[in-house]
Formats: sequence, C-alpha cells, structure tokens
Amino acid sequence: MTSVALYTINNSASSIARLCRASRSAHGTADFHSFVARYSTLRKCAFLPGGKWSCIRAGTRQMSQASPGRISLGRYGKGVFLVAGAAAVTGVLAAGVSHFQRAEMATKIFKVEEVEGDMRERCKSFMSPPVTDIKVLEQRKDEMCTRMEMLIMETQAAFCKALEEVDGGTFKVDSWTRKEGGGGISCVMQDGKVFEKAGVNVSVVFGNLTEEAAKQMRSRGKVLKGKDGKLPFCAMGVSSVIHPKNPHIPTVHFNYRYFEIEEADGTKQWWFGGGTDLTPIYINLEDAAHFHKTLKKACDKHHPKFYPDFKKWCDNYFYIRHRGETRGIGGIFFDDMDSPNQEEAFNFVKSCAKTVVPCYLPIVYKHLNDSFTPEEKDWQQVRRGRYVEFNLVYDRGVKFGLATPGSRIESILMSLPLTARWEYMHEPTKGTKEAEILEVLRNPKEWV
Amino acid sequence: MTSVALYTINNSASSIARLCRASRSAHGTADFHSFVARYSTLRKCAFLPGGKWSCIRAGTRQMSQASPGRISLGRYGKGVFLVAGAAAVTGVLAAGVSHFQRAEMATKIFKVEEVEGDMRERCKSFMSPPVTDIKVLEQRKDEMCTRMEMLIMETQAAFCKALEEVDGGTFKVDSWTRKEGGGGISCVMQDGKVFEKAGVNVSVVFGNLTEEAAKQMRSRGKVLKGKDGKLPFCAMGVSSVIHPKNPHIPTVHFNYRYFEIEEADGTKQWWFGGGTDLTPIYINLEDAAHFHKTLKKACDKHHPKFYPDFKKWCDNYFYIRHRGETRGIGGIFFDDMDSPNQEEAFNFVKSCAKTVVPCYLPIVYKHLNDSFTPEEKDWQQVRRGRYVEFNLVYDRGVKFGLATPGSRIESILMSLPLTARWEYMHEPTKGTKEAEILEVLRNPKEWV
Repeated sequence: MTSVALYTINNSASSIARLCRASRSAHGTADFHSFVARYSTLRKCAFLPGGKWSCIRAGTRQMSQASPGRISLGRYGKGVFLVAGAAAVTGVLAAGVSHFQRAEMATKIFKVEEVEGDMRERCKSFMSPPVTDIKVLEQRKDEMCTRMEMLIMETQAAFCKALEEVDGGTFKVDSWTRKEGGGGISCVMQDGKVFEKAGVNVSVVFGNLTEEAAKQMRSRGKVLKGKDGKLPFCAMGVSSVIHPKNPHIPTVHFNYRYFEIEEADGTKQWWFGGGTDLTPIYINLEDAAHFHKTLKKACDKHHPKFYPDFKKWCDNYFYIRHRGETRGIGGIFFDDMDSPNQEEAFNFVKSCAKTVVPCYLPIVYKHLNDSFTPEEKDWQQVRRGRYVEFNLVYDRGVKFGLATPGSRIESILMSLPLTARWEYMHEPTKGTKEAEILEVLRNPKEWV
Repeated sequence: MTSVALYTINNSASSIARLCRASRSAHGTADFHSFVARYSTLRKCAFLPGGKWSCIRAGTRQMSQASPGRISLGRYGKGVFLVAGAAAVTGVLAAGVSHFQRAEMATKIFKVEEVEGDMRERCKSFMSPPVTDIKVLEQRKDEMCTRMEMLIMETQAAFCKALEEVDGGTFKVDSWTRKEGGGGISCVMQDGKVFEKAGVNVSVVFGNLTEEAAKQMRSRGKVLKGKDGKLPFCAMGVSSVIHPKNPHIPTVHFNYRYFEIEEADGTKQWWFGGGTDLTPIYINLEDAAHFHKTLKKACDKHHPKFYPDFKKWCDNYFYIRHRGETRGIGGIFFDDMDSPNQEEAFNFVKSCAKTVVPCYLPIVYKHLNDSFTPEEKDWQQVRRGRYVEFNLVYDRGVKFGLATPGSRIESILMSLPLTARWEYMHEPTKGTKEAEILEVLRNPKEWV
C-alpha cells in the first residue's frame, strides 16, 4: 500500500515535471497560475493517498515563539529552546533538545489512518538501501525511529528524482558509515545543467553527546542529566540545499529531523524539528506567495498557528546578525516539537516533508529558461557569500556537526555553494532590483 | 629623523620593486637568490636606520607555548591565554588578554636608541591622516598608544605602496569612525592586475568590552574584574590579507596589535600580539624557506626562542580542525606579549611589522609572470574555500569583531577572498602537486 503511496509521490513529481514543461511558454504569469492550479491537484494525490489522511482540527494549542536569538520565550516556552539547527545538510544531525515543563497542549485529533505498506517494497525506490539494516527495520517497524528513517529516505528519493528530471543530470550517491554509530546517504549533483550544486542528505546517527556538541544544542533551559556527563542519543534527518545556476531560480533549503536522547535515569526525551526556506537572488512576488502559501496549506492541516509561528521563527533563525539581514525570504522553521503526541508530531513532519517538491519545483520550471546578465550572475555570487556566512557563522546544525567527532564533514559542508564572492563595500544602487531584495531581507514581509 | 626612516622604508620598498623587475628573467632560481641577497642589503637599510637599532641578547627568557587549542600550557603559561585572534583584517581588533601571574622573564636588553622624529612629517607618508587627531598624538607622543598608532600607520603605508607598485593599481582608502569610540582606515585594492583582493586595515578603537566580546577573548585563565561587568579597553592594530590572482603567488596575512584594558581597581593591563603567515596554493620550497628565514632573522634579533615558539604557535593557531589541516604553511604567531617590558615588546613588534614587505614581495615578483592552467586556478579556488572556513569558523579575531557592537563588518570580512569554491568530496590524486601541498598542510614542516 505504501509502495503505492511512494509511487504516487514519485509519479507525481514526474507528472509535475511534464506538466511544467507542457504548460510553460516563456514564463508567463497565466501559465504559472494554471500550472500551480493543475499541480495542486496532483499534489493532493501525492499527499493524500487514498484520501486516508484526515485533517487535524485546532484546539487550544499554542506554540512557543521562542527562538535561538530574537523571539522572546512565550508563556509556553519556559525552559524550552535548546535549538539545534537548520543544519543545511548535516552529517551529524542538527536537532533541538528541551521541551521540559512545556504547558500541556490540548489538541483534538482525528485518528490518522495510514498504511505504510511493505518495507522491502518501499525500500526499492530509495536512492540507496537505508542506513539501518532492513531486517532491523522490519523487526521494529512500529517504532518511531524506523518510521522516521523510512520517511526521510522517501523524501530524499522523491526530491532527488524531481531534480534529476528537471536537470537531466544524475545524483552521485555516497553511503557512509560513522564509526561511532550510524551513517548516512549523501546525494550530490554538481555542476549540472540547471543546478550548480544540489545536495540531499540523509543521516541516521547514534552514540553519546560530547559536552562540546551538547553546548551547541543548549541555548537555554534545563540541562539534561547524563551519566558521567554523557548522553546516549539517536538523531536522524533529511536535509538539502539546492543552488541553481540561473540567478532567477532561488536556492532552497529544507531539513526534517527526529531526535531521541536518554537521560541518566533512563527517561527518553524525543522531539522533531525542521523547516523549508527559500533564498531568492531577486524578489519575485508570485514565487514568494506560491512558496509560502504551499507551506501554509500544509501547516494549516495540522494547526492554524503553525504557519504564522513557524514563519516568524524561520525569519528569526535565518538571520545574519552582523549584516542585519535575513538569509532569504524564509518559509517555516520549528524545533523541539514533542506534542501533542508522537503520532501527531510525526504526521505534521510528514506533511512538511511531502511539501518540499510542490513548494520548489514549480518555481524552478518557471524560470528555467530565464536569461540573465553577467551583473545578475555577480549579484548571485555575492548573495552566495552571505549564504556561506550564515552557514559557517550562525547555523547551529553546522556548528554541532563540526564539533561532533566522527561527523562527515563533506556532508555537513555540502550546503555551501560551488562558488561564492565577497566584494568589499558592495551596496546596490537605490531603485535597482538588487536594492529591492535587500530591502526585503532587512525587513521581513508577510507573503500570504 | 623618523621621516628619514620612513622614507627609507618606502624607498626601500620601491627599490625592491625595481630590483625585482630588473633581476627577474622568467623566474629562475639563480635570479631569485641574487635578488634575495641584494634585497637583504636594502632591507638592512630599512630596518636599521642609521644603525641605531641594536640586538637584544638572550638571557633566560622562556615563552609560553600555550595556544588557543593545541599547545598545552607551558610552565610559564598558567592562567595565560585569553587569546584573540589572527583577526585577518579586523574592524575591531583581535587581541589577547591575560598575562597574569606570568613567571618573570629575565632578559638582558641593550637600550634601544630610536629617534622617531617629527610627527607631522611622518604622517605625510600615511595612506590617510591617523585615526587619532595629530594634535592629540603630539600631546602624548611618548605614550605607547601613540607610538603604536604611528607604527601601524607606517606599516600600512609601506605595504600598500609596495603592493601598488607591483600591481600598478591604486588602493581605495576608507576612513571610518566607530560611534562607540575610535575608527580606522581600510585600504582595499580589488580585482587588480596582480591582486584579486588586497586589504590592509588599521583600526584604533576604544570603549567597553561587552560580556559577549570578552568571551571571545577568554579561553582560560583569570577573569578580568570589570566595573559592573564592563571593562574599558583600547585596541589598535594593522592587519592585512592579500589574495593574488595567479595561483603560483601565495596569499599572505599579517596582523600586529596592541591592547590596553583597565580593571575595576584602575590597574592597566597591556599586551602585544601579532604574526605573519603564508598560504600558498602550491608548495615552493624556496619560497617557504625564504619566508620563514626572513621571519626567523627578525625574531632572532630579539630572542632565540621567539622563532621556534611562535612558528609552532602559528601552526597550531591556523588549524582547520574539521579538515585536519593547517590554513597554510605558517610563519609566526604570538599573543599576550607583556614582557620583559613595554619598550622591548614594542621593539620586537616593530621588527616584525618591518619584515612584512621583505617576507612577501620577493615571492610576488618571482611568480609574477608564471603561467597557470584552469585546473590550477580551480585548485586555488578550493583552497580559498578553506581560507573562508578558517576565518569564519575559527578565527578569534573575526568572532570577536562580529560579536562586538559597532564593529565595521566590511573591514572584518575584508579578509575573505573575492571568489571561492566548494567542491563536494574534492581529494587530489596521489602524486599530484595538489596532493603534495595537502600532505604538508596535514603535517606541518620545519622550513629553516
């Protein structure tokens, strides 16, 4: 049954690709609208296999707006916030800790009937065999670790296939193991026709958190009690950064992750985190609206506050403090999600993961043949430099990864662009398209 | 008198340039040797105006080998180490704190007779008027703050002029002020004939250290006692990073700085720091030996342990931990220098600052017309990526600058190359020139 669902997703991605090519003449707005409309129908097929997913009605749930630096802790955020990261593509996962003392959230949920189907069948569509041995996955198929590993493998495959179709190139697939425990699958397409560098990474790692790594995860809140200062953990996720060649096609990043950590007394803490965000080189209002609306729709199925809260969190997280500007035009970002229950949190993450292709691919197709000037390419390179600054200076996922022994550096730094540029005192002239996007990055907007 | 000394320096730089051009046919080794020999004579004129500098004979002085991460604290290093940075080009200075309880060092010193001459005359050769008003400088001309400001201005001018001569381009000079106190002069030449990006920065700043900024400076040791958690400070320095276009001309970095900080009880702590280091894209044994020998000669005039200790410190400081490789082939690096006395410490820093041109310019001239392939240019771009990684992830000076309110970001990040590249899983083939330098970066060598 799930194999059908997965087929539907991949098939959907392919259909979108074909549809995009068919409906696209130049890059007219009308075409884009008709494309998005038709494509939404396809998306429904992908997201609601057999119509078996039902919406979650909002109760009184309120999310903390706390964020690593800029949002103050809300009344549900006490002791919360041991963020981790937007990790771009990490070899060792970015993830948030905490969620202690969180106020109970009352959310009325319909039972989600979901049939995940035969595991071996599902694995056939992956970019590589999963990190964990299939026999082990089968033995513990109902555990969250297994279900999340299957989801991230599926997300990787669906996204890679959609990108391969538009680019015409093929992802290089590297499976790697981490001697401290676990491993990952890194898919990279470099210097393709459409994409300068596209990385989609899965990692499933376990071991003990070192003090240095733990520091990266604890920005506030109650300290987890470890045995002899060590905390056994298991972290997994899928993350991706796509840097296209054409400056009119934005960079996209997403990351969905799950974290389990065991305290000295045997208590298991678990939580989800993730997000999807867009970094255009030039502002295109239609693209921005499409991207945010698609995310909002996925969020609204689970809680009406998710989109506004996580949109704000995203703007605050991807903030290049020393420049006084955001990395891009945002999207959603959340961490530390451990309520109302594991099942519902997982379903939300699943909805988000399945929204990546419909968020991004229509924008790629729309601008595929846009012409550009050397000056526009230069501006893209300058913006790439800012992307590098954020990832190396602020991203908690990258910091966590670089500080964690046994991390796979190539997977962590896969998020960096193939090329970047730093021009001294670069400041666009007023009234230019370059100044226009800077204005937006300095003053984040509402897009829906 | 000093105007003469300064003239000598600048004249010397020009003479070197002419000499280089004259003695250079292709880039033969014999020519290089004869050039270095002749040039050493010139250098003597520059460094020993009127023969009035005398050497300092070594007594029992022993320097701490402590360093930010990798050298253990020696027996004189207790509580030492509040390093700051190699800051590349910083808007707010990198500098080391500490030097408490340092074991007294017995060094026999000859009186250094130095005439620094008329201040207004000296200022005429600068790239811009100094940061501090000339009248103020004249009023307190014997204070270390003034003498150091004059030295860093002179160093900036001498280096910029030597670079302009070889490139044919002109430095863009920006004077800037910092609303919290002080300012700087940034000289940048971008996309020149020889240099892709050349930055030479002077900054003279004062104010109060914030807790966050202080954190960047304290890695170990006794905490400085501030009034209400604030520590009035004054920091100044000259720093530079030069990224040439030709991959056969190495990148160079230097930074010389002075720091004063006042504790709650009025005690003034002061110290010097600095260093010069080379980052070649390909190993050239002759260049490496010339660079290190020139530094050693400058160090040996002051103490026989300076070169070996500071060479080691440099290799340890400029270490990209997550890559397991040094940034380049090193040079010297020191911090926290507050002994045997202010005069002698200043003289050592002066010797180092005056060694920058003779360390680097001969190498530039030697490779000026070397041909290179697109593959060599690509390798240069990959190495530039590593440079960015070090500067943004590890450099304490950059971290300190980015975390200090009122810093001039453009000056701090001036050290980043114009262009850089990140290739996934880039590993040179065994036996290639690219593999050869990686081997050196992974296993630092002794060059003299």
